[in-house]
Amino acid sequence: MVYDKQAVREVLDKAKAVGREALTAPEGRLVCEAYGIPTPGEGLATTADEAVKLAEDLGGGPVAMKIVSPDILHKTEAGGVLVGVHGADAVRDGYEKILANAQAYKSDASVHGVQVQQMLSGGQEVIIGATTDQSFGKVVVFGLGGVLVEVLKDVTFRLAPVDAGEARSMLDGIAAAELLRGVRGGEAVDEDKLADVIVRLSDLVTDFPEIRELDLNPVFADAKGAVAADVRILVETEPQPERPRYTHEQMLEVMTRLMHPRAVAVIGASNEAGKIGNSVMKNLINGGYAGEIYPINPKSDEVLGRKAYARVADIPGEVDVAVFAIPAKFVVGAVREVGEKGIPAAVLIPSGFAETGNHELQEELVATAREAGVRLLGPNIYGYYYTPENLCATFCTPYDVRGGVALTSQSGGIGMAILGFSRTTRTGVSAIVGLGNKADIDEDDLLTFFAEDPNTKCIAMHLEDLKDGRAFVEAARQTTKRKPVVVLKAGRTALGARAANSHTGALAGDDKVYDDILRQAGVVRAYSLNDMLEFARGLPVLPTPKGENVVIITGAGGSGVLLSDACDANGLSLMDIPPDLDKAFKAFIPPFGAAGNPIDITGGEPPSTYEATIKLGLEDPRIHALILGYWHTIVTPPMVFAELVAKVVGEARAAGIDKPVVASLAGDTEVEQASEYLYDNGVVAYPYTTEKPVAVLGAKYRWARAAGLL
Amino acid sequence: MVYDKQAVREVLDKAKAVGREALTAPEGRLVCEAYGIPTPGEGLATTADEAVKLAEDLGGGPVAMKIVSPDILHKTEAGGVLVGVHGADAVRDGYEKILANAQAYKSDASVHGVQVQQMLSGGQEVIIGATTDQSFGKVVVFGLGGVLVEVLKDVTFRLAPVDAGEARSMLDGIAAAELLRGVRGGEAVDEDKLADVIVRLSDLVTDFPEIRELDLNPVFADAKGAVAADVRILVETEPQPERPRYTHEQMLEVMTRLMHPRAVAVIGASNEAGKIGNSVMKNLINGGYAGEIYPINPKSDEVLGRKAYARVADIPGEVDVAVFAIPAKFVVGAVREVGEKGIPAAVLIPSGFAETGNHELQEELVATAREAGVRLLGPNIYGYYYTPENLCATFCTPYDVRGGVALTSQSGGIGMAILGFSRTTRTGVSAIVGLGNKADIDEDDLLTFFAEDPNTKCIAMHLEDLKDGRAFVEAARQTTKRKPVVVLKAGRTALGARAANSHTGALAGDDKVYDDILRQAGVVRAYSLNDMLEFARGLPVLPTPKGENVVIITGAGGSGVLLSDACDANGLSLMDIPPDLDKAFKAFIPPFGAAGNPIDITGGEPPSTYEATIKLGLEDPRIHALILGYWHTIVTPPMVFAELVAKVVGEARAAGIDKPVVASLAGDTEVEQASEYLYDNGVVAYPYTTEKPVAVLGAKYRWARAAGLL
Repeated sequence: MVYDKQAVREVLDKAKAVGREALTAPEGRLVCEAYGIPTPGEGLATTADEAVKLAEDLGGGPVAMKIVSPDILHKTEAGGVLVGVHGADAVRDGYEKILANAQAYKSDASVHGVQVQQMLSGGQEVIIGATTDQSFGKVVVFGLGGVLVEVLKDVTFRLAPVDAGEARSMLDGIAAAELLRGVRGGEAVDEDKLADVIVRLSDLVTDFPEIRELDLNPVFADAKGAVAADVRILVETEPQPERPRYTHEQMLEVMTRLMHPRAVAVIGASNEAGKIGNSVMKNLINGGYAGEIYPINPKSDEVLGRKAYARVADIPGEVDVAVFAIPAKFVVGAVREVGEKGIPAAVLIPSGFAETGNHELQEELVATAREAGVRLLGPNIYGYYYTPENLCATFCTPYDVRGGVALTSQSGGIGMAILGFSRTTRTGVSAIVGLGNKADIDEDDLLTFFAEDPNTKCIAMHLEDLKDGRAFVEAARQTTKRKPVVVLKAGRTALGARAANSHTGALAGDDKVYDDILRQAGVVRAYSLNDMLEFARGLPVLPTPKGENVVIITGAGGSGVLLSDACDANGLSLMDIPPDLDKAFKAFIPPFGAAGNPIDITGGEPPSTYEATIKLGLEDPRIHALILGYWHTIVTPPMVFAELVAKVVGEARAAGIDKPVVASLAGDTEVEQASEYLYDNGVVAYPYTTEKPVAVLGAKYRWARAAGLL
Repeated sequence: MVYDKQAVREVLDKAKAVGREALTAPEGRLVCEAYGIPTPGEGLATTADEAVKLAEDLGGGPVAMKIVSPDILHKTEAGGVLVGVHGADAVRDGYEKILANAQAYKSDASVHGVQVQQMLSGGQEVIIGATTDQSFGKVVVFGLGGVLVEVLKDVTFRLAPVDAGEARSMLDGIAAAELLRGVRGGEAVDEDKLADVIVRLSDLVTDFPEIRELDLNPVFADAKGAVAADVRILVETEPQPERPRYTHEQMLEVMTRLMHPRAVAVIGASNEAGKIGNSVMKNLINGGYAGEIYPINPKSDEVLGRKAYARVADIPGEVDVAVFAIPAKFVVGAVREVGEKGIPAAVLIPSGFAETGNHELQEELVATAREAGVRLLGPNIYGYYYTPENLCATFCTPYDVRGGVALTSQSGGIGMAILGFSRTTRTGVSAIVGLGNKADIDEDDLLTFFAEDPNTKCIAMHLEDLKDGRAFVEAARQTTKRKPVVVLKAGRTALGARAANSHTGALAGDDKVYDDILRQAGVVRAYSLNDMLEFARGLPVLPTPKGENVVIITGAGGSGVLLSDACDANGLSLMDIPPDLDKAFKAFIPPFGAAGNPIDITGGEPPSTYEATIKLGLEDPRIHALILGYWHTIVTPPMVFAELVAKVVGEARAAGIDKPVVASLAGDTEVEQASEYLYDNGVVAYPYTTEKPVAVLGAKYRWARAAGLL
């Protein structure tokens, strides 16, 4: 689009020159015009005919008419203002009347003519705005005007800039979206033109970052277009700090050396059991890490059988990672030495920095590291695991079930929950990483690595904040095209109020910003710790569906109903079974069983009925995913069911049919073993819940849709 | 309230006499007036002064004025109608103008005067209605007018009749409730007067059940009152069938004999392993049931060592329950014999009735049973358990962990999930009951018994429909005052559209009806199978809180944030810690730990810190419930934590302090054993989830609030 940036520049510079924060209405109008954002039309008429033509050109609706005369300052007093003038005759009369009034008021006044301004009303009132989020930077918002915004906060956010498609998605992103399409005889708005305003606004705030908040409120949208009736713009009067940024290549290089180190130094390595420096050494050695391990300990010649060095400078070879197990007060000095040795990554287990209120020490640490060319993981973390290298650089217990999921946590406690859950469920893991205070290395650095990492099929992250939400979204957008990213964002409800001077600013102090923007980045958000863990476990197990047709096959009618509820709750579409397929299913089930969807094979059926129907579900190419409901009976005991499902699914996969299959097992305790067996065989299965398997399938679908695979 | 029932009777009879379904607008107005529901005021003025006075009496707002003359039929044509007349002068002028117009139109017309009608506008537009739900009968609805009802379906339902308090709760029961209290300078409505309209409407449809649907739409509500601008009433033209009802005493008597039978007959008892009649016999005997067991089998002299009888008539003693294990086709005949023997309750395991499409057989069965004076459980069920009597009248495996929860399920599959879950979690159970086709005995019969049953502390029910929702609510209201009732209502999203002729009717085809009315009855609704099971397990374990002040004590800051999120999601209030208490907590935790709430004792603390803070939390009477967040460390290992918590909580209970305590354990796999230990010691604890423990506590709070205990 062609924008008049120069015009905006001039307006903003003028305000900046006098340290003015709020633009005036005419300045706002100028800025809008420069970016092609429609504002109410206006023009100067010097004859009644011109006034009529102008009013017509302005859409034929009601207009306001005002005398334009340098000699008449109090227009209203002079009878020089008319509002709500509607129709050619009224405009003509109005023109004459204003002129006559002016003449009567001041007979010698020099009259330039009459200003004719469009009066907006009708259509849908919407709000379009932009604000500057602490983490995400420029964010645009869209919502319907009035009570829907004020009371129900029915708005949606996106990271700016947005393209036309994203802007259109905002129109669908509010609960009351139906209103835009016309309800009960109401006129549908021109969605393209409305979306266009969003695009232009998002370009505007992107091009001019000093625009801190911008409200178009209300915008009147109807079938003809969208016009911003009022604009409010607030600008930064102080220069904004730049965030440090690394390039993709820079991030990838350091992260690769962190995850595939040729050698690891342990600063504070110890022979004394119970010490963190001892646990880290043991885990590195017992975990089976094959690279060199260099203990650093000025008081010992060796630690756990490895030659120890007094200082990192003494290490003979090249080192990629230094793990710190020394008190906080020694960390800054050691980081400097690490930099001098050319070690690019420091893993800072020690606590005693910002988390204990010692912000100064952390700032000194960060500054030192930047100077020394060292990237920092932590401080205040348990360390990290990378199973493809048998690397357990942590003081916790080793973990060795290799697999496709990389998990990260901001909190140490959550990291321990990840470890315990993974161990008990035998979740195949590529990495577990603690981020702690995130003084430097952040989720976007890790995402950049995991996106490229062939050992990682899925990433799950617990986080409480994003230092740089924009960098995260950029990394996530690249990653989610290739593999699912699950995020548990803690602190959903404790964001607290932020000072805000505009409507949009006030709306943005909300978890909804995270919700919308993470979705925009293709992230699958988990709303509970357990969901994050189960998604992390299940997503790499499930193949990607090739379409939206989900079919439930159940032995328990009761489970079928609950599984249908769960499909609805998770945005899954139950396939409308075509007649031929319905007939094919019916051939296998008792006459009183229900085909349709759920397919209720009824409870008393033998294994052969489960087998035949599941096989059919796998083989028919119109079906894209299966949800199985099992009912424990003597006729088909749990392990018999599990083994037959594993067999049928395995045969299908061998024949190149790879559909996601999940299962809910209702029965006595044997269903627990059967569920585990199924999970081990690529079927995401759970006992005593109809919701969990569907939630995992739903998460896979959410990702597949966001990645454009459906 | 004083209602003119006679007036309504006359209107309805008039419509009924001609088989008319819809009342006319004047009829609707008459009905409203008879029940004191305000409608727009009107009156006849015979002088201009009278017109002015009338307009003032009608509130002083705009009025419509119409000529009243038997000689002028086309009032508008005659210039006899003015709308939007506002203010004394305008009314006076209007009066004169109408009379002059009439005079000009027809000089000899006989003029009675001018009708002055209030014109409604401004204030809040709301909808108040009533409909007849298939299950619940008369239901009232309230919502805000316009888009909020049309698009967002922001409405709330209650069972009619409602009292003033319930009507007020409806005003708060919609998402946009804030609007009624005035937003951005808007005027608050008179909530009492608005609620009064709801009460009157609910009384009206209760007094006249033939009113099938009733819409007051819109009702204009403002600070002065609420006036129904339009009324639409639809009446039944056919007589409605009465539902069979039993009195409280009748239900209680049969249910008591069902649960505490002195003797049980097993019809179809068998010596042949694998037969249902064999499994039932084994379970009764092996379960330890102490009453007489009479096998009925015409082909054997004894079954499993018990003397068998050919027919129930042959049984020497009195029998309370007959368990059926014979094919469907023999059931009706056997029920007749059971009735003749005076056995009050038949437990019908056999399938082959309505669930397989055989509705006729089920109808015959029900009719026979009613005639024979036999109440039926089932058919198509697994049977039932009642542990206080060691009674396992089922073909499934026995269950013997006694405890306080009674579980029921409509579906057999869900029943099996209940059994497996209960066994693996060692949930203490009083009863597990299958309801199957619910041909007769229903949730309300069971609730009536469990409410009185001293062995039952909590009831959890899975259901897909309620045959008689009104009877259920009546029973639930009585029960929930004494013990929690948890309901998993399946089929939330598959209700399908129902034909409806009114706005309210269309709104009612929704799960929201169940949601609102179950809440109205004090029921705790579970939205997933697993939640139902966990609530069933946890609610009897947790003591009832005595107030709303919840405090989180956590070793993991990360868990603290997630636990806070969960509190918000579950409607729990984090206590605002008073300064003296804050100081008391701070005395135990490191200087960088956070008091406030969550109280973050920080991760590296020894058992003594957990102990001291938890003890303080238990002992301070201002705190009503505790949520613990544990972080697995070497300093405080999982079992050390579990044992110290159990000890502190046990000591407090011994000292008469009985507060609900729940815990989330983050750590390696040892936290699983620690969680089990805690649960066994009265602390609802889970590993790897911050949500579940808070959800169980939230369920306890929801019940306690509904029961009026807070």
